[in-house]
Amino acid sequence: MKVAIIGGGAAGMSAASRVKALQPDWEVTVFEKSRWVSHAPCGIPFFVGGAVEKFDDLCAYDIEYFRHERGIDVHTGARVIEVDDGILRVNDGGKETTYEWDKLLFATGSKAIKLGVEGEDLDGIIYVDDIENAERVKMEAAKVDNVVVVGSGYIGVEMADAITRLGKNVTVIEVMERPLPEYDAEIAAIIKSEMEKYVNLRLSERVTAFEGKDRVEKVITNKGEYPCELAIIAVGVVPNTDLAKGLVDLGVKRAIKTNSRMETSRENIYAAGDCAESINVVTGKEDWIPLAAPANKMGYVAGVNMAGYEMHYPGSLKSQLTGFKNIEIGKAGLSENEAIRQGYEVVSAFITSRTSARYLPGGLIHLKVVADRKGKLLGLQAVGKDVAMRVYAASALLYKNGDVRDLFFTDFPYYPPVSRVWDPLVVAARNIFRKLGVP
Amino acid sequence: MKVAIIGGGAAGMSAASRVKALQPDWEVTVFEKSRWVSHAPCGIPFFVGGAVEKFDDLCAYDIEYFRHERGIDVHTGARVIEVDDGILRVNDGGKETTYEWDKLLFATGSKAIKLGVEGEDLDGIIYVDDIENAERVKMEAAKVDNVVVVGSGYIGVEMADAITRLGKNVTVIEVMERPLPEYDAEIAAIIKSEMEKYVNLRLSERVTAFEGKDRVEKVITNKGEYPCELAIIAVGVVPNTDLAKGLVDLGVKRAIKTNSRMETSRENIYAAGDCAESINVVTGKEDWIPLAAPANKMGYVAGVNMAGYEMHYPGSLKSQLTGFKNIEIGKAGLSENEAIRQGYEVVSAFITSRTSARYLPGGLIHLKVVADRKGKLLGLQAVGKDVAMRVYAASALLYKNGDVRDLFFTDFPYYPPVSRVWDPLVVAARNIFRKLGVP
Repeated sequence: MKVAIIGGGAAGMSAASRVKALQPDWEVTVFEKSRWVSHAPCGIPFFVGGAVEKFDDLCAYDIEYFRHERGIDVHTGARVIEVDDGILRVNDGGKETTYEWDKLLFATGSKAIKLGVEGEDLDGIIYVDDIENAERVKMEAAKVDNVVVVGSGYIGVEMADAITRLGKNVTVIEVMERPLPEYDAEIAAIIKSEMEKYVNLRLSERVTAFEGKDRVEKVITNKGEYPCELAIIAVGVVPNTDLAKGLVDLGVKRAIKTNSRMETSRENIYAAGDCAESINVVTGKEDWIPLAAPANKMGYVAGVNMAGYEMHYPGSLKSQLTGFKNIEIGKAGLSENEAIRQGYEVVSAFITSRTSARYLPGGLIHLKVVADRKGKLLGLQAVGKDVAMRVYAASALLYKNGDVRDLFFTDFPYYPPVSRVWDPLVVAARNIFRKLGVP
Repeated sequence: MKVAIIGGGAAGMSAASRVKALQPDWEVTVFEKSRWVSHAPCGIPFFVGGAVEKFDDLCAYDIEYFRHERGIDVHTGARVIEVDDGILRVNDGGKETTYEWDKLLFATGSKAIKLGVEGEDLDGIIYVDDIENAERVKMEAAKVDNVVVVGSGYIGVEMADAITRLGKNVTVIEVMERPLPEYDAEIAAIIKSEMEKYVNLRLSERVTAFEGKDRVEKVITNKGEYPCELAIIAVGVVPNTDLAKGLVDLGVKRAIKTNSRMETSRENIYAAGDCAESINVVTGKEDWIPLAAPANKMGYVAGVNMAGYEMHYPGSLKSQLTGFKNIEIGKAGLSENEAIRQGYEVVSAFITSRTSARYLPGGLIHLKVVADRKGKLLGLQAVGKDVAMRVYAASALLYKNGDVRDLFFTDFPYYPPVSRVWDPLVVAARNIFRKLGVP
């Protein structure tokens, strides 16, 4: 059996490894257009900010490991040009070849949304969707004084943090009225106030053009102009499905339609990772959730099924964790706004609590829990200190379709330095009890 | 209605607050033998070690708060002498009085197990079960050079940590073959090696006597002698049911038998906290789980039911979190040994993983997951760095009767500084997959 995998990121390499583990005699070939496999785009901000010194450290495994230890035939610098039944056309290091396949996986990831404004091809304007741009950003940032970051999603926020660590003046321009727009207003207000200590945060502003001679000199918005020598664009991503469209059905946000075995609409063709749709566990509906951990699991499940076994991917919660300077930021499931858009009648609690026993230093955490009118948990958002443990716990409860009673009664361990005898999660649950009329 | 509550700790004050919140017109009286209510025995080691400066900071709320804000009639220094149908005899600040009640709650907590060896009444030998002893320990520890801690459960381990922070020589004597004997050997080995860097850890040794003229001078065991000027005894607790026995049925470990509404065998008498039994959510059986967070929730539930509403306490997981120097230590559910004793056929995975992406500093976590042969999760133990978030997550899954597949597929968020794209929990689940034949 010949298994072809397009894309050597998280999903592709997980699938390849799984197929070889279960079917060691099958031929598994990965075509990756960059020079790296299993690379770590989530690490780019840490490399740019200096926490990671060497660019090579970002790339999870060296290719020889996959080749020799796992027996995967990895082709880097190999761009697939066309996909047809049983055959691929590949530009493999400059040479065009064909490759036959019995089973195929699309693991082509996502690609950056372009702003589509005048001047965006000037030098000094960089999209950080691609691992290949990490070195460029770091090198260029070192030489300049003023950097504009366009977009304040996860990548924008983390890049802004990283670049302030290099001692540069950073302006962040966000078209929405708050940073990390997936969060509700109460949480975003805290993020905003932390960001404003370190960067010039411009909200509700739309970039209309970039200006400069050879190189970017300023960013123009509908409200002002921002001189800069470097602009980093992170305004979101879309599924990279150029090769797949026409061949297999597309679904939500034009990601590749898949079932729970990661099968596409066409026999023997699978999709996994950022190019594929999956189920949102909270809503039970198809969704597009381009995140690294789900991508790995989708790849794993695709690999098991491609190898002839059966495994179902239940979907994801869009669980996320990030940080800016002194605050951790996290979310699992739906925000209140997202829940309302999905048609839920919601009840929510926003609380601020210490994270430690009151007699120890600790810090503050701000939590928002969203539930429906029957008490079913829909989501958690948190910002402040010791956020990860609460988002982990909420992820588990959301995954298990838990309700507010479960949030109250789950026996979270108490240890004075990091938790409270009434954990902030439990306090939030109690708060929702009141709104639901639970005694 | 007259509600009497015996004991002003976590369970008693939670119950009292709940009754007053739901039935503001009822008379709620708390009888507490010490000078404090809602005190924080879990904070004693932090006070002794110096992280908490003032003893008063350990006592959660001042009594006036409960009296005036919550309308609870709090009597401190009030020792209940006898309980009878509808009446209590109380030594209230030296004066004997009686008090009539319609509903009664036992929230009498636990008490220290005595060693029962020669010399244990010498000066300089202190049991730390009681908040009143915290100041004594701190004062005496300041004056001496050599301290022996007998017992290495949570309290023993935390006290040993605290006293080394005062620059004293500490010997810890444990009768079992490992410290924190509720943990399995793999986890205990790591705790042991951390403890041995700071204290003289004597395992499998039984204290047979204390010697000294007026004051303790040495601790004698079956294997040796340890000179010391202060000995702290923390060899466990038992339910404090002196007042209850004969009146209501006792259950597991002679804790007060309760149903899920925290009702005892006798009408209108309730029990909550360390004096009461409850359900172990993992086994579904009655158990005795004397911990602060469950005590608060039991009190809350007792209060709701005493107030005439209905709420059921589902039980606890015995979730625990502690630390020693540079390691966090945590557990939820059953260890492998405990599971075997409960009759489960177990499968387990012990793994060591970094806690951060490999390109960031992070640290190591050692995890053990225990499941039954069908994959049902039975417990998690962890030691090292970033333990709390994993024990929180495992607590949620155990509470929701999760299995290994849930542990694998729960969408834990990935953030390079504190987690991994394959979280250690997920790696452990995958490890159990292999043992269960999941592809």
